[in-house]
Amino acid sequence: MPQFTLHPKLAADSIELGNCQICKVLLINDSNYPWLVLVPRRGDIRELYQLEQADIEQVQRESLEVSKLLMQHFKGDKLNVAALGNLVPQLHIHHIVRFENDAAWPKPIWGVVNAVAYKKNELDKMSESLRTLLSSTALQFKPC
Amino acid sequence: MPQFTLHPKLAADSIELGNCQICKVLLINDSNYPWLVLVPRRGDIRELYQLEQADIEQVQRESLEVSKLLMQHFKGDKLNVAALGNLVPQLHIHHIVRFENDAAWPKPIWGVVNAVAYKKNELDKMSESLRTLLSSTALQFKPC
Repeated sequence: MPQFTLHPKLAADSIELGNCQICKVLLINDSNYPWLVLVPRRGDIRELYQLEQADIEQVQRESLEVSKLLMQHFKGDKLNVAALGNLVPQLHIHHIVRFENDAAWPKPIWGVVNAVAYKKNELDKMSESLRTLLSSTALQFKPC
Repeated sequence: MPQFTLHPKLAADSIELGNCQICKVLLINDSNYPWLVLVPRRGDIRELYQLEQADIEQVQRESLEVSKLLMQHFKGDKLNVAALGNLVPQLHIHHIVRFENDAAWPKPIWGVVNAVAYKKNELDKMSESLRTLLSSTALQFKPC
């Protein structure tokens, strides 16, 4: 299997929080929404079904755990979970906490409003609190 | 657990193809893209993690099988899989085959172009071929 390298567009848009057993966890640098992206650390994978069965199940477990965690912590009105990848074909799964008063509600977030980068101190605080949160679960999360 | 009733907005936008073990399978009446929606037949569920564990795993199996099937059959360039639900909170999972020359490419489809309903004979043909396809798998699909 080819080596895994994070797609440069994902790297540019996010802060790496750390790794679960299979997925790298990214915080998207857009303060409009609490927004994590899971990227399975396997080379050349575009669709979930292309992974081996054990890897698929691990991705599904990590996605589910992150979903619960985000909604419990941020108390969102709805979670949006999506694997799209038209522009960045490397498999990556968005987990976006939505609120009825957020910038794009009730639309899906893509293409509605421009990203608003976190201020430096907000970003540090958000990253740290998410790393602590992810470390508190059964995800075997290793912060970076 | 409360009884399952398909949300009227989903019913209005689609044609029911039938049922897998847990999910109802809908064909969205938009000829811009081959687009199936899976709706777990459980009452009052908004997020995947709210289902019981066995149901979660069954939904994940059905989503994966439908993903493979759609991409093999339509030979798309990318599959978009998404559970959003901001307007229709009933848990439903979009499976949309994308092509580099489709109406919304490379954007996510929501809010880009209006739906183009299938003509009657196209719709019959598409529904029948999808029912046959779904019946040919290990999904235990029952057409309606």
